[in-house]
Amino acid sequence: MATDAQPIARAGGFYEELPAGCGAYKFYLDGAWRESSSGKQVSISNPTTQGVAFRVQACTPAEVDLMFEAAKAAQKPWARTPLWKRAQALHAAARLMREHPQPIADALVAEVAKPRKDSMAEVIRSADLIDYTAEEGVRYLGEGKLLTSDSFPGNERNKLCLESRVPLGVVLCIPPFNYPVNLAVSKIAPALMAGNAVVIKPPTQGSVAAIHMIQCFHRAGLPPGVINLATGRGSEIGDYLTTHSSAGCISFTGGDTGIAICKKASMVPLQMELGGKDVCIVCADADIALAARSIVKGAFSYSGQRCTAVKIVLVENAVAEELVDQVLEGVRQLTVGSPEDDASITPVISKSSADFIESLVHDARAKGARLRMDYRREGNLIWPLVVDDVTEGMRLAWEEPFGPVLPVMRVEGVEQAVAHCNASELALQGCVFTRDVERAVRISDAMETGSVQINAAPARGPDHFPFQGFRASGIGSQGIRNSLQMMTKVKSTVINLATPSYTMG
Amino acid sequence: MATDAQPIARAGGFYEELPAGCGAYKFYLDGAWRESSSGKQVSISNPTTQGVAFRVQACTPAEVDLMFEAAKAAQKPWARTPLWKRAQALHAAARLMREHPQPIADALVAEVAKPRKDSMAEVIRSADLIDYTAEEGVRYLGEGKLLTSDSFPGNERNKLCLESRVPLGVVLCIPPFNYPVNLAVSKIAPALMAGNAVVIKPPTQGSVAAIHMIQCFHRAGLPPGVINLATGRGSEIGDYLTTHSSAGCISFTGGDTGIAICKKASMVPLQMELGGKDVCIVCADADIALAARSIVKGAFSYSGQRCTAVKIVLVENAVAEELVDQVLEGVRQLTVGSPEDDASITPVISKSSADFIESLVHDARAKGARLRMDYRREGNLIWPLVVDDVTEGMRLAWEEPFGPVLPVMRVEGVEQAVAHCNASELALQGCVFTRDVERAVRISDAMETGSVQINAAPARGPDHFPFQGFRASGIGSQGIRNSLQMMTKVKSTVINLATPSYTMG
Amino acid sequence: MATDAQPIARAGGFYEELPAGCGAYKFYLDGAWRESSSGKQVSISNPTTQGVAFRVQACTPAEVDLMFEAAKAAQKPWARTPLWKRAQALHAAARLMREHPQPIADALVAEVAKPRKDSMAEVIRSADLIDYTAEEGVRYLGEGKLLTSDSFPGNERNKLCLESRVPLGVVLCIPPFNYPVNLAVSKIAPALMAGNAVVIKPPTQGSVAAIHMIQCFHRAGLPPGVINLATGRGSEIGDYLTTHSSAGCISFTGGDTGIAICKKASMVPLQMELGGKDVCIVCADADIALAARSIVKGAFSYSGQRCTAVKIVLVENAVAEELVDQVLEGVRQLTVGSPEDDASITPVISKSSADFIESLVHDARAKGARLRMDYRREGNLIWPLVVDDVTEGMRLAWEEPFGPVLPVMRVEGVEQAVAHCNASELALQGCVFTRDVERAVRISDAMETGSVQINAAPARGPDHFPFQGFRASGIGSQGIRNSLQMMTKVKSTVINLATPSYTMG
Amino acid sequence: MATDAQPIARAGGFYEELPAGCGAYKFYLDGAWRESSSGKQVSISNPTTQGVAFRVQACTPAEVDLMFEAAKAAQKPWARTPLWKRAQALHAAARLMREHPQPIADALVAEVAKPRKDSMAEVIRSADLIDYTAEEGVRYLGEGKLLTSDSFPGNERNKLCLESRVPLGVVLCIPPFNYPVNLAVSKIAPALMAGNAVVIKPPTQGSVAAIHMIQCFHRAGLPPGVINLATGRGSEIGDYLTTHSSAGCISFTGGDTGIAICKKASMVPLQMELGGKDVCIVCADADIALAARSIVKGAFSYSGQRCTAVKIVLVENAVAEELVDQVLEGVRQLTVGSPEDDASITPVISKSSADFIESLVHDARAKGARLRMDYRREGNLIWPLVVDDVTEGMRLAWEEPFGPVLPVMRVEGVEQAVAHCNASELALQGCVFTRDVERAVRISDAMETGSVQINAAPARGPDHFPFQGFRASGIGSQGIRNSLQMMTKVKSTVINLATPSYTMG
Repeated sequence: MATDAQPIARAGGFYEELPAGCGAYKFYLDGAWRESSSGKQVSISNPTTQGVAFRVQACTPAEVDLMFEAAKAAQKPWARTPLWKRAQALHAAARLMREHPQPIADALVAEVAKPRKDSMAEVIRSADLIDYTAEEGVRYLGEGKLLTSDSFPGNERNKLCLESRVPLGVVLCIPPFNYPVNLAVSKIAPALMAGNAVVIKPPTQGSVAAIHMIQCFHRAGLPPGVINLATGRGSEIGDYLTTHSSAGCISFTGGDTGIAICKKASMVPLQMELGGKDVCIVCADADIALAARSIVKGAFSYSGQRCTAVKIVLVENAVAEELVDQVLEGVRQLTVGSPEDDASITPVISKSSADFIESLVHDARAKGARLRMDYRREGNLIWPLVVDDVTEGMRLAWEEPFGPVLPVMRVEGVEQAVAHCNASELALQGCVFTRDVERAVRISDAMETGSVQINAAPARGPDHFPFQGFRASGIGSQGIRNSLQMMTKVKSTVINLATPSYTMG
Repeated sequence: MATDAQPIARAGGFYEELPAGCGAYKFYLDGAWRESSSGKQVSISNPTTQGVAFRVQACTPAEVDLMFEAAKAAQKPWARTPLWKRAQALHAAARLMREHPQPIADALVAEVAKPRKDSMAEVIRSADLIDYTAEEGVRYLGEGKLLTSDSFPGNERNKLCLESRVPLGVVLCIPPFNYPVNLAVSKIAPALMAGNAVVIKPPTQGSVAAIHMIQCFHRAGLPPGVINLATGRGSEIGDYLTTHSSAGCISFTGGDTGIAICKKASMVPLQMELGGKDVCIVCADADIALAARSIVKGAFSYSGQRCTAVKIVLVENAVAEELVDQVLEGVRQLTVGSPEDDASITPVISKSSADFIESLVHDARAKGARLRMDYRREGNLIWPLVVDDVTEGMRLAWEEPFGPVLPVMRVEGVEQAVAHCNASELALQGCVFTRDVERAVRISDAMETGSVQINAAPARGPDHFPFQGFRASGIGSQGIRNSLQMMTKVKSTVINLATPSYTMG
Repeated sequence: MATDAQPIARAGGFYEELPAGCGAYKFYLDGAWRESSSGKQVSISNPTTQGVAFRVQACTPAEVDLMFEAAKAAQKPWARTPLWKRAQALHAAARLMREHPQPIADALVAEVAKPRKDSMAEVIRSADLIDYTAEEGVRYLGEGKLLTSDSFPGNERNKLCLESRVPLGVVLCIPPFNYPVNLAVSKIAPALMAGNAVVIKPPTQGSVAAIHMIQCFHRAGLPPGVINLATGRGSEIGDYLTTHSSAGCISFTGGDTGIAICKKASMVPLQMELGGKDVCIVCADADIALAARSIVKGAFSYSGQRCTAVKIVLVENAVAEELVDQVLEGVRQLTVGSPEDDASITPVISKSSADFIESLVHDARAKGARLRMDYRREGNLIWPLVVDDVTEGMRLAWEEPFGPVLPVMRVEGVEQAVAHCNASELALQGCVFTRDVERAVRISDAMETGSVQINAAPARGPDHFPFQGFRASGIGSQGIRNSLQMMTKVKSTVINLATPSYTMG
Repeated sequence: MATDAQPIARAGGFYEELPAGCGAYKFYLDGAWRESSSGKQVSISNPTTQGVAFRVQACTPAEVDLMFEAAKAAQKPWARTPLWKRAQALHAAARLMREHPQPIADALVAEVAKPRKDSMAEVIRSADLIDYTAEEGVRYLGEGKLLTSDSFPGNERNKLCLESRVPLGVVLCIPPFNYPVNLAVSKIAPALMAGNAVVIKPPTQGSVAAIHMIQCFHRAGLPPGVINLATGRGSEIGDYLTTHSSAGCISFTGGDTGIAICKKASMVPLQMELGGKDVCIVCADADIALAARSIVKGAFSYSGQRCTAVKIVLVENAVAEELVDQVLEGVRQLTVGSPEDDASITPVISKSSADFIESLVHDARAKGARLRMDYRREGNLIWPLVVDDVTEGMRLAWEEPFGPVLPVMRVEGVEQAVAHCNASELALQGCVFTRDVERAVRISDAMETGSVQINAAPARGPDHFPFQGFRASGIGSQGIRNSLQMMTKVKSTVINLATPSYTMG
């Protein structure tokens, strides 16, 4: 065991109980932090040092069963808790997260090489998300519909239908490595507000940040069993979790294993977000400086490891030179280094990820693309790169690098750009830069992606906006209200009257 | 009695029963067409010939009382009619209107000098409006809310609140002369769908068109008393109607007498639309040809006698010359003459109206405005006129001509244009022409009018869009759904449980 | 000056700045507490001691003008404040109210003789109301509608209508004496969240509680001018306030002066609640013990000085004896005395009120009603009284005592009870006790009151439920969301396209 | 080939083109009726005669491919059709269905042995459903949301999010045999209104009714490719259809093959309804006559072959005897015979179905259940049967007979009844009979089924009410609006501003 695998949590602190004596982090079952009966642990790699960052429990299928059992048992009483009290519990968790953010952020730095400031921002934004979800849930779930029968031909007003939304039971939450805190709470908070219990399986890299975050819910007094957290190897418990008969809903964010999950899953609601090849269309009439600034930020933030990163620029020939020059100028400002130093560009999540990125670059170069700066890599650290003159035949035109590499394709006109956008299977978001109001609406209508940003880079937030992918990019919609909707189902009660009755008639 | 005062309705026809033996049109009370006990009649002037077009009954206050009595008695059973049956009745009226449109259109030509084609279009659009309102009402009124108590701090889930919308009782409808059919059905149809009864007082000029339209409801089998129509002099029954203790709502479209109505009215919902000084802001970056076309149509359709006519152009200096040239070019294409000939410009509604318009022109000319064509008037017929270089000190900068006279004010910049817009009391609609998406949103946000059109002239429709004026221009919102809302009120029923109950908990 | 007219606020405390040197409370204008230029003060009577409780400023019309000026000036920047920041300000005020509740509650005890515990409960409930309104506003105002033109016959999809809700400007808030804090914040909080500024005129008795409450907003950092508070004699500034040309909305709770306000008011939205003669219908199949308990609490809480107090019991003969016996049993448990001692029954608000109540009792007795206990009064203190065998000819059958006197009318059947309910002009709430689900729905549908409670006494809350009166009882609806709606108006922006565009088409 | 396999369609008639020369019905592809290249046909059995009723084409996988191709090609232009025109097309189809109902009804009689009157009622109700869906779609799809960014902490108002619903592409519709027309249009109509194209695979028994119904859409002028209908053996094309990569949504009603479909399906929205073991709880305080009438109708209509048939009665001991006596009395009134004679009870759909029902009866009898009349069967015709004293150990307690056999379980109390309800996997609907309002709400809250009817038998309609099953009974919600929702997905467009803009601020 490498000597760097020390837990963050300090004696006497808020997070003290998380690590076991051996230093590995515990998992969370039925209101308590525990060691796995497997006696095994999983090591978490630090992308920057490539050493072991932390160790977590390798949970067993039997422990997964216990989690679902605990969750099922806890769910009914939780669903009988008044909405405002559920909200109160969530607000308490958010408050604790704001009061104890540093260890969560530190874990993000170590596990996923997220820059220090961004790591802290993720924690704070997550607390805001929990608060907002709590209040949204109070309203969304406290209001149903009243339908009367006399709307439909042939009926009198003798039936009053009360339509409301009820919990699904146990929601299985699987967030990705890039936002293991924020994309965990975006699933947990609506699940809980809706009266569900939760089993969460964080990504291996990101587990320890998630574990610290869950401690805030634990200390906030959520009843035992309402949240449970499993760690371990996907190869051992992944399928076991996603095909578990007690999972009443799966909310997954990640890569294309999501499609496999869908194909194996039983008849349960699926909220999936599987990545995006987000296009950025730049029209000849655009504000080029704005576009260039947005592209640099959009493509290279967190080294491009974002579903909503700009994944390809489609620029009209007339302004391509100008745009690329300004983008290059911006890229030159980016710092490259370690997350502890708040570098703009930090090591990507793993060696295999870096290798994959490299293969895309080699493919593009081999097929005639123009690298606008030298390709440079050290370990998992890849220097930011703009690949110009990308064409349809290159893998970079279609695949997500999920790294600091930005392909630019120069197009004859907007039609070609829209066609490329719509031919991509990873149809999450897209954006278009144009000053013209008519063109803006027309192009965004034509783009077949879940969201379209006019005059800004793709973005997940603000978190109350809807968020969804088309085609292979996902199913269902996120955003706070839409997640509440997806994590509930309709129940209707009809009061039948022996003879019709009309209000005020 | 002038010899031209012959009723349109032909023997044996659908409208046969409308005129009395003496040729004057009857009024409608409790399901039957009747002559007034006053023995008096009101003559309706033909704006084109200035002769008498038709005669209608001069109803008495006692007859108004009978109408409200009939309406109150009919309202309760009507409110006990299933929604789909109310819709069926409205659809039947719309169908009859489409089958017998010509006499309604002919009356519009004769009474309000509306061009022939526009008159027919008003009838057809009115039938569409009725149909749409029927189906909207089936849905809007058949759906309420279900609220639970446990949203609010301190409460358990032991109260289920059923919120729905119920009728107001009798709705008093007062449409204006310029759309006596369309703006009558825009009030009648939602009032009826919502389970209200109706008393309508059409404008004197427009009464006969309205009378024919009401016949379609009569023949459609609406129960007696559900609709009633009064004709007569406003000076005799106007206040009597608007302060009547049985009026549960007043829906008025017209001029500034609306403010007087508000001040006298008792505690009843008021839906008022009192005209607009609709500005048209043209930015330097606009599509000038589009703006000019829109302005010509927007300012001169039905000779400018529309609430949503362009009432003043505010154009940035840089493009003012170009814009005005193109507007003048468009104005030259307009034909001037009689409504029977489908002239673009027809006589305005009355001599007093023409005199008022003339006074505005004289005032502007005296204060230095530049008339871009000769001012010409014959009787009520005023030739289309563009008045350029209008300034803040002229009455044309602030008052509605309600005629074919278009003031143009050249402005330094958009700020000045917006300031002028917001200084006007008649804040109904406005429009802005710009190609720029950011500027379009920013200017429309800044314009304090009920509606703002981006890149089109002001317009009332499509009729399911909201429509409302700010400041002295009105109160309440129209548009099909908003009218249904205004003509109903909230009723709530709370089911209290002795002990809390949670669905699925 | 009576020696008891000492301010509550202590030196060095949170409320220190409220009283002037002379001991009279200041009024609030443009962010500062001030003394009136009138040099005059109004004395506030203590209902229990009938001495002077406090003194407040007698504001002048000129000072009212200054308030509206300050409000108008402050409103625009306030409306440009992000919704979440407006919410933050309201949350801050609520927090301060929870931290400093005692002086507000003490004022309620002294000014309106509200029992100590109820006074404190009013403050806490008010803080909850503010918090809930803040979050509701964030959502209600941050979400509008997007309508497309191709719904309406004849249209293509070339118009996108963005419908949202915008502020009214300055909202004039006039709460009543019985809940001078809660019914003030139920107006202020939605007005502010919606981006309006506020001028509030508290009831004379209740002014000092309101003044302390406003201090919480002041200290929360609301921008100067956004709230202003006037005190003074209604005879001097009442009409001046309600007919002020800068009042963009009037939200009033009180007695029948509300109708006069409506008749004089200009064309502005009116939210009025003018009291209720809330009936309680008890069916023969009801849970009599539940009904009796509910009636005692419903009729006598705060000595019956509540809009939603049970104002008359209509009980079916078959169970009348049993019900009345149980009610009498409950009434005997009530304590009578001073608010400081938390007596159930405390002095009514004024001598004139007590005289009025007495006149109703005398009238009933004279006409044959049966007083089920001795009528007893000392000063403003009236002992609780059940008046049985009330009939249609007695004033108690129709008028609100607003005191601890409960009329009981025995009815042949439910039809008679409903008919009595619907004949009353003060149609705020009603309730019905029955075990039968069909009867419950049928009777509540038939009762023409703003709200109907099934199996519970009338109640204003929980505060997110709708609340409204019919006929002379009011106009508009309250409840948190409905108040947000009433204090805003619709604005629509239409993006027009030169050629149609269909999303994903 | 049996001689009875003659097509219904007559020469010169509206349906003339449906049968091929050989008498077998054609399938529908890209706007034309065609014969399969397979040269093979599938025979449809008449449940009453057990002879061949009709023959239809055995489509090939290649033809299925063509259908999806045609559908994909047609979908885009269809989605560019204004909403009111889509509605117009649907109204035209509904009108044709009402004008030519007899052959559709005749097919139902022959294929699925539905009584004559019920068959005709299904056609008319289907036309109503189409009309209602058309108007609902015009509204639901023409209205989205407008969200602003300043609701979320940290944001200014510089983002306007336009949220609307867009088509899924091609919707695969698979209705069941018992309502092959109504449950086809309940899928087709919302799919089309939402801008999708449709591939429908009707049940083999029911194909010919569906074929006639589709002819109404064909003649209504739906563009070629927008609807396509495949016939054939499920074993040959079933999986091919449900796993087709071009299916953008599957809407299925049927048996437990639905679960297999879910497990194989790719990442597409699933709307599944897989049957229900609908319980009927009768409380001791119920209106027993009402309950008995409802049970007889609910259990035996269409011989119990309805998802919403009463599948088991759970009656409190105290009233069990009385209830069963009244049920038996009702059952004795039922006629047994052929659908042509409008018998109450007609042959069940197939021999295997009859055998299955018989096996349930034998199992129950063997385990001690009491048959309240003789068990009698002739071919597929089973006489109505009440099986009393059913206990937990019998298959009839848990499995759906889908035939005229009604199990009755006597229970100690309501808790036992609710527990039985909630232990069943087929949780579609349930009903409870009680007079008590509190008990009604409490029991319906406790019943974990998609819908609960208070004081009436389970029912699918009226069709604008929500309709959904829990657990193994389905996923997603139906009912007109909910189906429109399920057959669309969210798309959002965000207008980003360089600097914030506040409306009216």
